[in-house]
Amino acid sequence: MELQPLFDYISRYIALTPEEEEIIASKFKARKYLKGQYVVQNGDICRSESFVLSGCLKTFYIGDDGQEHIVMFAVENWWTADLGSFLSQTPADYNVQCLANCVLAQVGYEDLQQLYLQVPKLERFFRIIVQKAFVAAQKRVINNLSLTAKERYLKFREEYPELEQRVPQYMIASYLGITKEFLSKIRSTGS
Amino acid sequence: MELQPLFDYISRYIALTPEEEEIIASKFKARKYLKGQYVVQNGDICRSESFVLSGCLKTFYIGDDGQEHIVMFAVENWWTADLGSFLSQTPADYNVQCLANCVLAQVGYEDLQQLYLQVPKLERFFRIIVQKAFVAAQKRVINNLSLTAKERYLKFREEYPELEQRVPQYMIASYLGITKEFLSKIRSTGS
Repeated sequence: MELQPLFDYISRYIALTPEEEEIIASKFKARKYLKGQYVVQNGDICRSESFVLSGCLKTFYIGDDGQEHIVMFAVENWWTADLGSFLSQTPADYNVQCLANCVLAQVGYEDLQQLYLQVPKLERFFRIIVQKAFVAAQKRVINNLSLTAKERYLKFREEYPELEQRVPQYMIASYLGITKEFLSKIRSTGS
Repeated sequence: MELQPLFDYISRYIALTPEEEEIIASKFKARKYLKGQYVVQNGDICRSESFVLSGCLKTFYIGDDGQEHIVMFAVENWWTADLGSFLSQTPADYNVQCLANCVLAQVGYEDLQQLYLQVPKLERFFRIIVQKAFVAAQKRVINNLSLTAKERYLKFREEYPELEQRVPQYMIASYLGITKEFLSKIRSTGS
């Protein structure tokens, strides 16, 4: 069924009974988005967390200078949202936009709160995946402080080989905090 | 009792029964460290998560260039660890060192796994606090990409007023990814 990749992913971390799967399936909805559509818009409240069934998205922030800064990408088996907005149900700082046609499995805020009560082991699941995300975010801070632009680019390619193929170079440059001209120079000097 | 601040902190997020408090108290140990002592050392496995009962610590990373990069600080009511090392029980990338005499409430890896089974609502507690930490880490990435050094410093002062008083300026500079000379210039030009 459509949500199968979500259950395959959850089963990496916790074992669900068929009844629990059914409860979860009743709260998640698969939704299609077109390339270019926004899943979250800055200033709106982020109403749901999205698991990527297919497609590719970017989360970005527009600085005071009007420049776009890429917070993260998401492809199949990743989660995306403006998590700060979702958790506090306050207006989002970030935008989440589809870089290709996407199918997302989405759970709304109230539904997720109910799910935590009905299937408490989801607390464990989300605890584990957000711990991993936190460790990765902290590592990115440190990479930005301690590595050269070229080293950051090589690490990005090594860690996310699938993204390099699916995301335009100028967005990778924005994610790495460098200009697209500089990225293109790094790439042309060989690696 | 000595662990009371830990229970006060946990009770912000979940309600514990006296029996559950007792189980938790049996797994956490208060431990004293002297200023300058290391709680985690790069290359060692981080064996416990620490809640700060009193004191002040820094987590830092030594880059290939031999330079120290500050990952985070911790004061009363914060948690500290090399979380990546703790979760996977593999050698730490980071060092955690006391900037003053400290008293930490520590829980070992195996004890925490047992606690999750004995007091499952701790999954919820850790899920919530790490979600908040993730949101803050992501915001720091974006601040580093989109704000000027001066803006980052002003934001740091605003968000962590207590740290400014307790941490040497050169460490704040390292946390912000700027030289101490530059920070001192920012400070002297008024704010």
